[in-house]
Amino acid sequence: MKVLVIGGTGTIGQAVVKALQSRHEVISAGFSSGDIQVDISDIQSINAMYQSVSDLDAVVMTTGKVHFGALQEMTSADYQLGLSHKLMGQVNVVLSGMKCLKEGGSFTLTSGILNCDPIVFGSSAAMVNGALEGFVVGSAIEMPRCLRINCVSPTVITEALENYAPYFRGYEPVSAAQAALAYSKSVEGAQTGQIYRVGF
Amino acid sequence: MKVLVIGGTGTIGQAVVKALQSRHEVISAGFSSGDIQVDISDIQSINAMYQSVSDLDAVVMTTGKVHFGALQEMTSADYQLGLSHKLMGQVNVVLSGMKCLKEGGSFTLTSGILNCDPIVFGSSAAMVNGALEGFVVGSAIEMPRCLRINCVSPTVITEALENYAPYFRGYEPVSAAQAALAYSKSVEGAQTGQIYRVGF
Repeated sequence: MKVLVIGGTGTIGQAVVKALQSRHEVISAGFSSGDIQVDISDIQSINAMYQSVSDLDAVVMTTGKVHFGALQEMTSADYQLGLSHKLMGQVNVVLSGMKCLKEGGSFTLTSGILNCDPIVFGSSAAMVNGALEGFVVGSAIEMPRCLRINCVSPTVITEALENYAPYFRGYEPVSAAQAALAYSKSVEGAQTGQIYRVGF
Repeated sequence: MKVLVIGGTGTIGQAVVKALQSRHEVISAGFSSGDIQVDISDIQSINAMYQSVSDLDAVVMTTGKVHFGALQEMTSADYQLGLSHKLMGQVNVVLSGMKCLKEGGSFTLTSGILNCDPIVFGSSAAMVNGALEGFVVGSAIEMPRCLRINCVSPTVITEALENYAPYFRGYEPVSAAQAALAYSKSVEGAQTGQIYRVGF
């Protein structure tokens, strides 16, 4: 298979690339690193990315920004970052990719634990994760040409705990390699409309 | 209690008003009908609404627009209607209301069945419902002054089936009065961070 991993140089993305590249041709995309560059908040950049890679079987997304902040200080604009970047960035990669992925190909999106097991400062992440999961469930039944779509929702990642530990006290982390298994299941299996929760 | 029902003249809203007004003072708000007018897509309109009613104990929202359309024809702009109206409309009612509701007061939002049990044309509704539920779970743990927040997710409503039946074949409807029970539980109970699924 030919697999595009958007966010492939990030903590989870690197592990996904490592897991898939022993069996598949993997292209890593990133905002400023990777094999090709893409800004997922810009539809034209997404379309240019698809024009630069042909015959894709699968697109994996392990990227997206959200604002973390105290609920009482959050403004509508603060929520907009997550909606326009992590949510609609991933959704727009799907909408554009539906037209060019090979028949039976797959999209794998990334949400996260916070809409199920919330933390302080995480109301925007919880919103966006729920939105991504709803979109995956809702869109899976309308995918053309046997395309599939799934979402991986990992708990906090061991390799990222150095930065985030104070916000995730009591959360049992999983390694990036463990999380990568769920992406392999989505890409190399045949399921669709699934939310793969990893570590919870 | 003094309860504001935004969307109080709609199908579910009328049933909520009827259920609550035998025991409480209920004010109905709507875009063009009801006791007071509000455009939930406009923060200034939301703030003006709160300035016109004081000493609120509870705000119920039974309103919000989303675009229904075939996945392959949906654009980023089509998803934006649901994000800016049903999602951020309700969220902005919470963000503004957090500053003025009485201690221990409650917000009750409305999502819907489609992120759990999807229909064709419903990918935007599924996205927005998931986002609302994520926000409720995420924000409940950060509410100031013992404020509470819950979400009601009804299946299709009997009184609305006349318009929507072809899209919901095989879905067992619930009456607006049955759905209204969940809103009473949210307003008059003490739970927070809950998603009350009605009819599924």
